[in-house]
Amino acid sequence: MMPTNPTDECVLLAHGGGGELMSRLIREHLVPPLSNDRLAPLTDGAVLPRPAGELVFTTDSYVVTPLEFPGGDIGRLAVAGTVNDLAVMGAEPIALSLGLILEEGLPFELLDRIVASIAATTREAGVQIVTGDTKVIDRRSVGPDGTASDGLFINTAGVGQLRAGVSLDLAGVQPGDAIIVNGTIADHGLAVMSRRSGIEFETELRSDAAPLNHLLERVFDSGANVRFVRDATRGGLAGVLADICEATGLTIEIDEQRIPISPTVHHAAEMLGLDPLTVANEGKVVCVVAGADADAVLRAMRQDPLGQEAVRIGQVAASQPPLVELLTAAGGRRIVQRPYGEELPRIC
Amino acid sequence: MMPTNPTDECVLLAHGGGGELMSRLIREHLVPPLSNDRLAPLTDGAVLPRPAGELVFTTDSYVVTPLEFPGGDIGRLAVAGTVNDLAVMGAEPIALSLGLILEEGLPFELLDRIVASIAATTREAGVQIVTGDTKVIDRRSVGPDGTASDGLFINTAGVGQLRAGVSLDLAGVQPGDAIIVNGTIADHGLAVMSRRSGIEFETELRSDAAPLNHLLERVFDSGANVRFVRDATRGGLAGVLADICEATGLTIEIDEQRIPISPTVHHAAEMLGLDPLTVANEGKVVCVVAGADADAVLRAMRQDPLGQEAVRIGQVAASQPPLVELLTAAGGRRIVQRPYGEELPRIC
Repeated sequence: MMPTNPTDECVLLAHGGGGELMSRLIREHLVPPLSNDRLAPLTDGAVLPRPAGELVFTTDSYVVTPLEFPGGDIGRLAVAGTVNDLAVMGAEPIALSLGLILEEGLPFELLDRIVASIAATTREAGVQIVTGDTKVIDRRSVGPDGTASDGLFINTAGVGQLRAGVSLDLAGVQPGDAIIVNGTIADHGLAVMSRRSGIEFETELRSDAAPLNHLLERVFDSGANVRFVRDATRGGLAGVLADICEATGLTIEIDEQRIPISPTVHHAAEMLGLDPLTVANEGKVVCVVAGADADAVLRAMRQDPLGQEAVRIGQVAASQPPLVELLTAAGGRRIVQRPYGEELPRIC
Repeated sequence: MMPTNPTDECVLLAHGGGGELMSRLIREHLVPPLSNDRLAPLTDGAVLPRPAGELVFTTDSYVVTPLEFPGGDIGRLAVAGTVNDLAVMGAEPIALSLGLILEEGLPFELLDRIVASIAATTREAGVQIVTGDTKVIDRRSVGPDGTASDGLFINTAGVGQLRAGVSLDLAGVQPGDAIIVNGTIADHGLAVMSRRSGIEFETELRSDAAPLNHLLERVFDSGANVRFVRDATRGGLAGVLADICEATGLTIEIDEQRIPISPTVHHAAEMLGLDPLTVANEGKVVCVVAGADADAVLRAMRQDPLGQEAVRIGQVAASQPPLVELLTAAGGRRIVQRPYGEELPRIC
């Protein structure tokens, strides 16, 4: 059936022109689901109360393909990712911005699902989108495999206020510190890849994309001496550990048998020839904490739904040269390196 | 000549993977030109001092094509646009974020020119980029006219602090208020369009893209009763005036003979069949000020290099129904409407 009016079915270049059509796109598809008392579509920005402490400011763009995958979609990623970037800096999120780049031809039905997911994830995190911008680009060609083109890109920036008493600094990392993660790794990257490759597994792979600000609130409130926190996104666990090792000049030892990896992820990674250590996560943090406080941090994490499988996977050591070393299940040692280029393109 | 190593010549998908190549892209192409004491490439965000007043937060994405045009480029637009969104809210810019979406195949030479332009524009505005993110998307197809594909999209978000004593609110707009612009209109849109269409004019059309925070500082410091300020970007002067009219229920009368339009812009708009009133600007603000303060605002603007041609183009009136009315050179009246869709796609 032909649509009676194509402007009702999908995004057109004309929706990006700053005219009546654009105003309707914003009023009908963006403002109702995202509505809050600070999001004023007519002004160029939002006014927020003076923060209680130092300001933390972060940004991330999202170009994941496909736009929807088991466990999440680009909208959930965009909110969770920026909330997590604030939270790992030791900040409470104040507000997010939302920059949408829509591709001509994007069905409104799909846009509406993604905006609804954005709205749901902001409620989960307890944060609001207060300002936004929408652009439309011309239709990209259909890919060689006949799949649709990109659809949309999202940028979210976030502002937060630094928690009182939290001081995160790699300079404070010491030998004896514990390395903790809040659960299984590599779920996000493998969920997206398996969806993209069309390979099916007996147990469904699901992205772990989630806002971690409430989990980290528990960690900071535990009173533990937290040295450094980082979400293990692109580059995976290996990337974060390599960064810590490089910045501190200290060795990181991790124990292969303790690293939580689901059997399906393990199997999928083997089939796709990927190392789970370098695969992106979207709901996992690496915490470096004083060794004596490791148990307190694990207890705090396990009180949160997103920290049930929190585990200490290793420790910081003084041995030279500084390396990230994996103590293998077989009793050997293997050097873990950050990935060189892109094992998994367009993963977030 | 074949490049000895293609990673040195242009952006690859692998540069977006969070690995060694990406780290090199950031270290070699982004950090040196943008370097400042707050931009810490290893952390997920920037920590800034507690603002002196209420916080203003804004975002904009930029998808202009071509990436470079007379008078500017996408980088200059991205910095000026977000600085201007803060400035028209009555805020002093504190810091910007920079989200880059690079297309595989983008020559580093072009990226470097755009990043240099970003850096130069931040210096001009007196603001720093303190946090960023880089993603890479696969190559888009070459357009039907044989031109290269998109190259890059930019998102900039900005944080600012509200100036003490400035209270901008459309609710304060009254009959008798003056409408002021800081110079010629439609230069940006026509510079981009003439570049895109390949039409040449005797006098070069140049984009007006510029950060207006210093100009607006003079306006606010003049002590004038400033009701409302808005930059006339997508939708042009007509779009801003239509918004004011709709939100206030008041009529806006503007005088065709007073609206500053350069002869080349006038000529180009006629050739391309465009109405300069609806064409995007990137360095022009519309100020609504108390009628008695109009001269003070004009004097303040003319002290700034970007306000030399500031002029009062009209006033707010109580006549019903609320319309934007153009008093034509011929002595008639014409209703000005906001554009419906997109006269000029991908203009910013």
